[in-house]
Amino acid sequence: MTISNSWEERDGALHRTFHFGAFADAMAFMMRCAFHAETLDHHPEWTNVYNRVDVKLTTHDAGNTVTEKDRELARRMDAVYESCCKPEH
Amino acid sequence: MTISNSWEERDGALHRTFHFGAFADAMAFMMRCAFHAETLDHHPEWTNVYNRVDVKLTTHDAGNTVTEKDRELARRMDAVYESCCKPEH
Amino acid sequence: MTISNSWEERDGALHRTFHFGAFADAMAFMMRCAFHAETLDHHPEWTNVYNRVDVKLTTHDAGNTVTEKDRELARRMDAVYESCCKPEH
Amino acid sequence: MTISNSWEERDGALHRTFHFGAFADAMAFMMRCAFHAETLDHHPEWTNVYNRVDVKLTTHDAGNTVTEKDRELARRMDAVYESCCKPEH
Repeated sequence: MTISNSWEERDGALHRTFHFGAFADAMAFMMRCAFHAETLDHHPEWTNVYNRVDVKLTTHDAGNTVTEKDRELARRMDAVYESCCKPEH
Repeated sequence: MTISNSWEERDGALHRTFHFGAFADAMAFMMRCAFHAETLDHHPEWTNVYNRVDVKLTTHDAGNTVTEKDRELARRMDAVYESCCKPEH
Repeated sequence: MTISNSWEERDGALHRTFHFGAFADAMAFMMRCAFHAETLDHHPEWTNVYNRVDVKLTTHDAGNTVTEKDRELARRMDAVYESCCKPEH
Repeated sequence: MTISNSWEERDGALHRTFHFGAFADAMAFMMRCAFHAETLDHHPEWTNVYNRVDVKLTTHDAGNTVTEKDRELARRMDAVYESCCKPEH
């Protein structure tokens, strides 16, 4: 399974911006993804402003390059977003 | 808008059981609904066991009867569940 | 390290009621404990009503008796409560 | 009540970095503060990386200056941190 093409790879990291219908949806998304991050023991750098979450995924131990760990977390974040939080739903 | 017929009214309260694909989904659901509860200043009695959340809604100030406040929270919990957390998604 | 004596063992389970200053504190407590539950792969039965959380810990695989898994989760919930959410703070 | 002097005012915004003992503590902190943000209808720009949360508070409606709304949210975030999540606890 590939990651969605909403992710952009640049500067040794995967980047995606997620949009939500409300601040509380963005928070629920982060909370749900946080469990995946803990399970994978791989954590995002992410910024929330109101109904938006900007995510950056990189592997520090691999010299800030994109590894399979980043792709796996990206896939899971895609799945959370698809199944939960897209405003069109 | 009416509440879903998954709610059952008995003993002066609305009751519904929500099922999820995983514990973390149940937690994300509770977190999202918690914002609605705060907004409405009306709070559920709810029990979580793994991937299940049993909800009971009643209005104490109205002598433990079902009021419009309960129905509004029920509608919002339905909407959160529909848009986010149903395991069939 | 022992569990706090606020826990009561009866009917094959550990029971404790946690009190908070506000609903949002109860939610933050549950969220924090949820990560421990996932880490231990052992989950509580817990009920929230406003600023109160009633917890019941038992091990289904051991015929609903109290095992070391329950005690470990109890200890971690004690620690979260002590470090975070007691209303006297 | 004043805001803690851990906040720095620059470029029309209040800035503070919060440190935690673990990723899950940072998440619980964000969740707890999110309720304050909703209550105040004033939302932070905040970035989480593992056990750190960088917060930026500014009022867009006031031309990106620091207003009493920012100070109130800053005070509440201080209080959440003091009462909950400081790693020294």
